[in-house]
This record gives sequence, structure tokens and C-alpha cells, in this order.
Amino acid sequence: MSIKRYKSSGHLSAAVEHNGVVYVAGMTAADRSAPVKGQTAEILKKIDATLALAGTDKSKLLSATIWLSDIRTREQMNEAWMEWVDRNNLPARASIESRLGTADCLVEIMVTCAK
Amino acid sequence: MSIKRYKSSGHLSAAVEHNGVVYVAGMTAADRSAPVKGQTAEILKKIDATLALAGTDKSKLLSATIWLSDIRTREQMNEAWMEWVDRNNLPARASIESRLGTADCLVEIMVTCAK
Amino acid sequence: MSIKRYKSSGHLSAAVEHNGVVYVAGMTAADRSAPVKGQTAEILKKIDATLALAGTDKSKLLSATIWLSDIRTREQMNEAWMEWVDRNNLPARASIESRLGTADCLVEIMVTCAK
Repeated sequence: MSIKRYKSSGHLSAAVEHNGVVYVAGMTAADRSAPVKGQTAEILKKIDATLALAGTDKSKLLSATIWLSDIRTREQMNEAWMEWVDRNNLPARASIESRLGTADCLVEIMVTCAK
Repeated sequence: MSIKRYKSSGHLSAAVEHNGVVYVAGMTAADRSAPVKGQTAEILKKIDATLALAGTDKSKLLSATIWLSDIRTREQMNEAWMEWVDRNNLPARASIESRLGTADCLVEIMVTCAK
Repeated sequence: MSIKRYKSSGHLSAAVEHNGVVYVAGMTAADRSAPVKGQTAEILKKIDATLALAGTDKSKLLSATIWLSDIRTREQMNEAWMEWVDRNNLPARASIESRLGTADCLVEIMVTCAK
């Protein structure tokens, strides 16, 4: 089974495809001045673009891990999540707290998606 | 390859099946008054029920990620884990610390399982 | 589809193989006196050995999750990572902060790899 890698640079590939599954890297927002909801919305757009590169889309999401720098902001993350996710095709998901790359990085999301 | 989703509601599906792998959502205990061992035991029963819904069981576990609100409680979690896990079929596993949904949420577990 | 388990003992298997994917357990360093870069290098050697047991190698890495006890040490981890990783075959990756098993445990890494 072949492996395809997308947007490989620096330490990682943005996505890796193998055997019908696309593993997407943990994504953070570029605009760190945005609050949690805004950072989440930006990340989800980046995930859309990355899935498109790999020839798939959010209707085939399998799982998502969401790290929040403050778990008490989960509802704000969820607002952006519910505006984005395909409600007929919800993935398995965990959301937990973790200090992220920099103090103004409020959320990071890593997904796997079928193709 | 088709995708099957189980107990989809709110933000997520309790489990998603694709290509012979079942991705289970991060599970927490309903009884937050229980200590770590009790919360872990409740979560593991929920995982059993979710795997059964998807037509599989713990003998086919592939991997587990376990988040503890206090990593120093790992041995208490491990007691419940060892009473539950199929010792002939141990999954790959990581256990790390993370602040979880609420202060009384002491453990969260997310697994993948073959079918 | 069969499941193969490698180095099963205690709470977990060091690796589990299913359907062309090897799920490796979260690995930590034995030498806890080493700084982050040294602990990372030791872990990556252990991952090499575990992948070899399962008949594969780092050129087929799919994804990596890296937990650091202090996210500000990420660049030190990245130095060891870049000396080790196959730059033509970079995995998807997330690195986040988590308090780990003991205070002197500075990094833990969990990977999945194709075979």
C-alpha cells in the first residue's frame, strides 16, 4: 500500500494518506489575536483546504483531537465546530486541555479522515 | 469503503467505523463523585457498550490514549485498567496528564479497536 | 484481518499491527537525567527498534503525537527529531504540553506507521 504525503516541510507533513485514511497534522491558527472561536474557525478552514489537497472532505471525518489552552473555553470552540462540522457525519472526538506552542495559541486540532 | 457512525449526537459520534477500524470518542464518567479508579471502571464499561454497538470487543483493541487530571493517580487508573483489559490482547497505550472538561472529571479515555 | 501484538507486558503492548498499520505505544526515555534533546534521541531509538520488531521503519511513519512536559523545550526536541526523521517522508505531527509520568520525564512520543 502506497503512502502519499502532502505539504511536507520543516518538521512534518500537513497530511499523510495511507490505505484510504488521511492523517492530518495538528493545526493552529495564524491569527493569534483572535479569540478561541475565531482561532477555531481559522483552523477548520485550514483543515478543509488540507483535506481538499488530499482529495477528501469533512463529510468523511473519522476522529478529531482538540487541545484547548484553557478547557473552560470549550463552548466557544464548540460554537465554531458546530457551524463547520457536517451534522450528518460527526466524527469521534476528544477535547482536552494542553498548553500549546505559544501563550496566544488557544486551540490546536488534529483529525483523521477517510478518503 | 463505507463509513458507519454510532450514537451521533451533539458535537460528535460515540464511534465511527471505517475499513475494519472503530474509532471511539473520548469517554468520561457520568458519576463524577467517584475517585479515579471508579471513574475509570465506569468509562471502561461505556467503552465495552460502545464497542458492542459497533460489533466488536476489547479483545481487538489497537490503541488507547488515557488522560488523567493528575498523572500521580495513574496507579489507581491502572488498577481498573488491569481488572478490565484482556491481558492476552493488550493495546498500545499512552497515559498523560490533562485538565479535563470539569474539575471533578478525573480521567478520559479514547480508544481505537479492530473489528 | 489479523492483529499482531509486539512486546506485550504489564499494561500494554509496545506495538500492535492491524491491516498494514502499526500502532506504537507512547514511549519515554529510561535515562531521565538527560535533557529534552537526549531523552528525545533515546525515545526515537526505541521507536526504531519497535518498528523493526514489527517489520517496518521510520520511512513509513504516518503520524506522531509528541507530549513535552514544558512546551518551551520544543526546539530542543525538534533538534533530535530532525537528526532522526526521514526528511523525504515526514509524518503528520502534533506537539503539545502535558505533565508526564514523573517530574523528570520530559518528553513522550506515540507514533503510527505503515508496514
